[in-house]
Amino acid sequence: MHPPLIDVPLPQASRLLNHGPTVLVSAAHGGQRNIMAAAWAMPLDFDPPKVAVVIDKATFTRQLIDASGSLVLQLPCAAQADLCFSVGNSSGAALAAAGDDKFKRLGLATFGGKQVQAPLLAGCVAWLECRVIPWPAVQAAHDLFLAEVVAAQVDSRVFSNGRWQFDAAPADLRTLHHLGGGRFVLPGQAVQGQMLPGLQTGPAAA
Amino acid sequence: MHPPLIDVPLPQASRLLNHGPTVLVSAAHGGQRNIMAAAWAMPLDFDPPKVAVVIDKATFTRQLIDASGSLVLQLPCAAQADLCFSVGNSSGAALAAAGDDKFKRLGLATFGGKQVQAPLLAGCVAWLECRVIPWPAVQAAHDLFLAEVVAAQVDSRVFSNGRWQFDAAPADLRTLHHLGGGRFVLPGQAVQGQMLPGLQTGPAAA
Repeated sequence: MHPPLIDVPLPQASRLLNHGPTVLVSAAHGGQRNIMAAAWAMPLDFDPPKVAVVIDKATFTRQLIDASGSLVLQLPCAAQADLCFSVGNSSGAALAAAGDDKFKRLGLATFGGKQVQAPLLAGCVAWLECRVIPWPAVQAAHDLFLAEVVAAQVDSRVFSNGRWQFDAAPADLRTLHHLGGGRFVLPGQAVQGQMLPGLQTGPAAA
Repeated sequence: MHPPLIDVPLPQASRLLNHGPTVLVSAAHGGQRNIMAAAWAMPLDFDPPKVAVVIDKATFTRQLIDASGSLVLQLPCAAQADLCFSVGNSSGAALAAAGDDKFKRLGLATFGGKQVQAPLLAGCVAWLECRVIPWPAVQAAHDLFLAEVVAAQVDSRVFSNGRWQFDAAPADLRTLHHLGGGRFVLPGQAVQGQMLPGLQTGPAAA
């Protein structure tokens, strides 16, 4: 069922988010679970790896994160554009009130994480299991959550040798980058930056 | 000299960063100025628009931001991949000690902002002038800066009607998305997400 997943060494986990993909945020607590879309997520540190993600206080996912102290960021791929848009524009709270959830309604397959309780959505291309680093004032003022990545996995068809390898993989496995209104752009051509003459580099570079 | 720049209405400023581009961070204070690359930046709020960006405490840019309370995030384009890599891998502090700076060494053209003192780098495709929202403990613990966007401009060849229009513009104007080690990916194919059957939408969606 699963594509070949590999564990990402934690000091490389930031590379999963470096290029700015939209993520799906899942959380679970007390027998309930939810998943939502978030375009506003980024790495925060290398080792131990940390992330920052904006999660609106009106969302059901936020309630589950507040209760559990953990979350999963997973990267949907081009094949999941409709899924990403749909879970980002529907209410988990309304479904939970009826004993239902988005996973059941859409027939979504999940698998268990290695460190946290939140479900991992099958078909994504990367998964970062995270524990919230409590900053209650920041969470309240800006809906901003900081979290430590405690496990990371990736689909090895599209990430290997510590790097995304979009050119070598099916286009359906490319990450989604939100432009607004459910329109996404996929990674295209790659370019390698070169050092220009005129600037010195060295151990003090910063 | 300039391409046709347009002001971005502030409630649309988050759209400039939604898709996860690498940014160049510029700052100025007391007759000194610097510019560095940052792959870790994202929107934080819509209106008033806010952003979050990670700026290492070892950088000279950080000193100038701490002293001035302001910064500019600008989006380099494919034509500037070498420039982006170069200013991200060279020391502004070493140059400043010699009365020099990266702009002079590389012959970079700049123009003045509308709200803040930091220089705006010509040839980029978007510019967000920002004032720091002070969170000293967060800045100290995580090198994370939150800031309000007080002015935003964009190159109208590649952003119009409130949206990035990469398909209609020269490939050289596409944003850079860092994969690691100075390798970037450019925005490619666009896809539009559609609502899947099985989930209701409505004003309470969240």
